[in-house]
Amino acid sequence: MLKLYHAEPAANSLKALLSFKEKGLEFESVYVDLHKFEQHEPWFVAINPEGQVPVLDHDGVIITHTTVIGEYLEDAFPKAPPLRPADPVGKARMRHWNKFCDEHVMNYVSMHGWHRMVGVIARSIDSGEFEKLLTRIPLHEQREKWRTARSGFSEADLANATRKIEVAVDKIEQQLTATPWIAGEMYTLADINLFSMAGLAVARMFPEMNVDKRAPRFAAWVQRVSERPGVKAALAMPNRTNPALRTFTGEAR
Amino acid sequence: MLKLYHAEPAANSLKALLSFKEKGLEFESVYVDLHKFEQHEPWFVAINPEGQVPVLDHDGVIITHTTVIGEYLEDAFPKAPPLRPADPVGKARMRHWNKFCDEHVMNYVSMHGWHRMVGVIARSIDSGEFEKLLTRIPLHEQREKWRTARSGFSEADLANATRKIEVAVDKIEQQLTATPWIAGEMYTLADINLFSMAGLAVARMFPEMNVDKRAPRFAAWVQRVSERPGVKAALAMPNRTNPALRTFTGEAR
Repeated sequence: MLKLYHAEPAANSLKALLSFKEKGLEFESVYVDLHKFEQHEPWFVAINPEGQVPVLDHDGVIITHTTVIGEYLEDAFPKAPPLRPADPVGKARMRHWNKFCDEHVMNYVSMHGWHRMVGVIARSIDSGEFEKLLTRIPLHEQREKWRTARSGFSEADLANATRKIEVAVDKIEQQLTATPWIAGEMYTLADINLFSMAGLAVARMFPEMNVDKRAPRFAAWVQRVSERPGVKAALAMPNRTNPALRTFTGEAR
Repeated sequence: MLKLYHAEPAANSLKALLSFKEKGLEFESVYVDLHKFEQHEPWFVAINPEGQVPVLDHDGVIITHTTVIGEYLEDAFPKAPPLRPADPVGKARMRHWNKFCDEHVMNYVSMHGWHRMVGVIARSIDSGEFEKLLTRIPLHEQREKWRTARSGFSEADLANATRKIEVAVDKIEQQLTATPWIAGEMYTLADINLFSMAGLAVARMFPEMNVDKRAPRFAAWVQRVSERPGVKAALAMPNRTNPALRTFTGEAR
């Protein structure tokens, strides 16, 4: 009935898994092995033409993009524990932060993750083989990202990404002086989004940012989110990443 | 009670105005003169620290970002004519397209608009005066955009933006072979979003794209949206832009 195609419990896949675990929704888990580029295999592209995980299949209806999946689960399962405020202003606050995370955080943490991890993978592939792999990637932006990961992101782009992440950390810190959770009094999809994209990774990927000192409320919030049973359950799902390459989660640099 | 700070009925301001007009919601209109950089004035930055229009003030609650404003009006005024499907799948389709428009369309049309229009304005300002104006802009990205508008966007960036717009036009055309509106059987916030950001501008800004031939369903959809009474009402609102500079709406090149 509910089937989720996903990779390791990190970034986008973690974000989708967290909704399921927090809401206590049963689902069939289908692991897509990004190390083997399964997301670009014809069988998977037939499900999601963009060749990206995660993907939700609800009784045959395909929903993609994690922010959309999160809201969909709120709409489709109104009796499960909510991750979206009931009042219009609360919803707007949540969506404001989701949008901020999607447009100003996710891609910048991702760039550092790709630079450190995917670059290693991309450079380990023969150049003829690599070009062949590229032709299978449906999205132009993803092809470019793989190409850049192989050659290395520019120092200017990486520095700009770091700046964006610093702005985000300071903005979250500021918000957490006013409310216990990102969007107000309630733990919402916005907490899940920021935790999945930046919460786990930032302190470990950017020790020079000194997050504990720079943003103590942010650090405490990461800790608080990490201790939630739903979050623990999602993070305990199999992680087949080569441990030496777990840079997106910040475990290696 | 409902107050909207907005500029000309184009792009982001048009998008917010369309929700009001389509839903028949009364509101106080507060015109913010972008030609005079009023959006960076202290009185306005006190309302929206990002220094951007439009801004909704609902009984003192400030909501920013047009996609968030659109959903907010759906949530806050459930008895007004809906612009969001009632069913979870319809909502997900609408949000998918909104996200696509926000992340893959808006900024690219905007770049061409800025290149053609804002560049003219930016270059008309003395360089000392220009640097002073820049220091008042709260968002880093907006400062950079103004700086780039003055010096001119690179050919590579403009070509990439054109490519993104072509992808969007083809994607919309494809969708309109299956459904009468972008997100399905119903006219929604996604139609409003794409119409405001690309519908009006594309054919006029990019005659070489030959939209009528390349994407006849897209062209017919633009026409169909344009004829809606709510859309006519929004477009009839005062437009103080120097007519020679109306490039964002594609009236001048």
